[in-house]
Amino acid sequence: MNVLLVYAHPEPQSLNGSLRDFSIKRLEDAGHTVQVSDLYAMQWKAVLDADDSTATQTGERFDPVRDSLRAFADGLQSKDIELEQQKLLWADAVILQFPLWWFSMPAILKGWVERVYAYGFAYGVGEHSDTHWGDRYGEGTLAGKRAMLMVTAGGWETHYGPRGINGPMDDILFPIQHGILHYPGFDVLPPFVIYRTDKIDPARFAVACEVLGQRLDSLWDTPPIPFRRQNAGEYHIPELSLKEHIAPGRSGFTVHSSDNQ
Amino acid sequence: MNVLLVYAHPEPQSLNGSLRDFSIKRLEDAGHTVQVSDLYAMQWKAVLDADDSTATQTGERFDPVRDSLRAFADGLQSKDIELEQQKLLWADAVILQFPLWWFSMPAILKGWVERVYAYGFAYGVGEHSDTHWGDRYGEGTLAGKRAMLMVTAGGWETHYGPRGINGPMDDILFPIQHGILHYPGFDVLPPFVIYRTDKIDPARFAVACEVLGQRLDSLWDTPPIPFRRQNAGEYHIPELSLKEHIAPGRSGFTVHSSDNQ
Repeated sequence: MNVLLVYAHPEPQSLNGSLRDFSIKRLEDAGHTVQVSDLYAMQWKAVLDADDSTATQTGERFDPVRDSLRAFADGLQSKDIELEQQKLLWADAVILQFPLWWFSMPAILKGWVERVYAYGFAYGVGEHSDTHWGDRYGEGTLAGKRAMLMVTAGGWETHYGPRGINGPMDDILFPIQHGILHYPGFDVLPPFVIYRTDKIDPARFAVACEVLGQRLDSLWDTPPIPFRRQNAGEYHIPELSLKEHIAPGRSGFTVHSSDNQ
Repeated sequence: MNVLLVYAHPEPQSLNGSLRDFSIKRLEDAGHTVQVSDLYAMQWKAVLDADDSTATQTGERFDPVRDSLRAFADGLQSKDIELEQQKLLWADAVILQFPLWWFSMPAILKGWVERVYAYGFAYGVGEHSDTHWGDRYGEGTLAGKRAMLMVTAGGWETHYGPRGINGPMDDILFPIQHGILHYPGFDVLPPFVIYRTDKIDPARFAVACEVLGQRLDSLWDTPPIPFRRQNAGEYHIPELSLKEHIAPGRSGFTVHSSDNQ
């Protein structure tokens, strides 16, 4: 199988660098083909702007949505964006690996999402009707592929627990796992998260690799998070609110997974 | 009063550009002094790396936390970072204005947070003891100042409702409002959000400005979101989980506001 690892850490000699190298070896030893987008090493352009294509006409104002549509449809995108889209199409599974900085992904990875997720590629796909609101949230260009987050966090696991002060890790990751991965069609596997990274010693690193190795070995048969499909009859269209008989009386991120009835 | 507007949109002739200009005028007409950090116009460096200071020794690996500490303590930070820190210290209120891209802030603004929020400035402040886990979540360098988000979203308001498919807007913004603003001490005001920005016409724009104007006029007396203070006795230390008698039996982001008992 083909695995794309999108990696966002500035220092190769870091915990993240070690986990990346471990992951590549583990996957290749199992016979998979791995491509790595090492965003810092690539000096990835993080900022979405009019230079991302030649679609913006001279003297015209830059419209991120309209110009992305034009650029994708007419082959006017920057080459770096096209290459990443080709890697996504090539991959059977995509891993986003990053340190949690200020409760989200690093800017360089956010900018990868913003620039690579073009209109017509990751959004603005499919028809809109009374029963179908675009190919998204379970359908779309990347449907049938798997995705997983690999995240390192400095804080303690309890700080990210159900009543931990940072908020539950699953909720912190929801805008990424649901909004960035499930949206264009990925099946999203539970994340691999390491906490308290400043206290990593060889023993804890070995344990982390043991767990991570099992996660990578089972990439193809781990059940994905059962995020609901937008167009499968569970949401009102076009309001896109969950129908009243599903998870009745509840609200928030968790109602959008079918294991949280 | 002094207001810092941190603005992250690539096109001046956009809805965001118009709202920015309206806001500056409204605040200045009321006698306030406004500074704008127009991140795209400043060509803000979005990516945190070893070039952000001269603290990383030659041949040494780059450690984002340790090197940020050294750079801030020893005056080795890049000038652009120092200038933004000075603006934050100068401001009585800070407004972060941005379009919601993939359910978070644009990369250029995320990179502003990552680089400006140095160790010793926005985190790593204060003592750690049995009753006090650093000056954070309600205490810290920016305590006593107010902050507010101004956000534009393409989707419908119902898509961001309590049971809307994108998740509730308050939950989507929690990692920013609580994790980025409350963390270093800001009092966080409820956000100003406009939905369905592709359908903005002059009538809707006028209504938006009416509401926004009132929000700006009441910047100093709007009650902040009652996020709990970490060190006020409501959390176990060092686990930092909410004590059992507070919001009993509940979990998730909402337990960290005292209006959600």
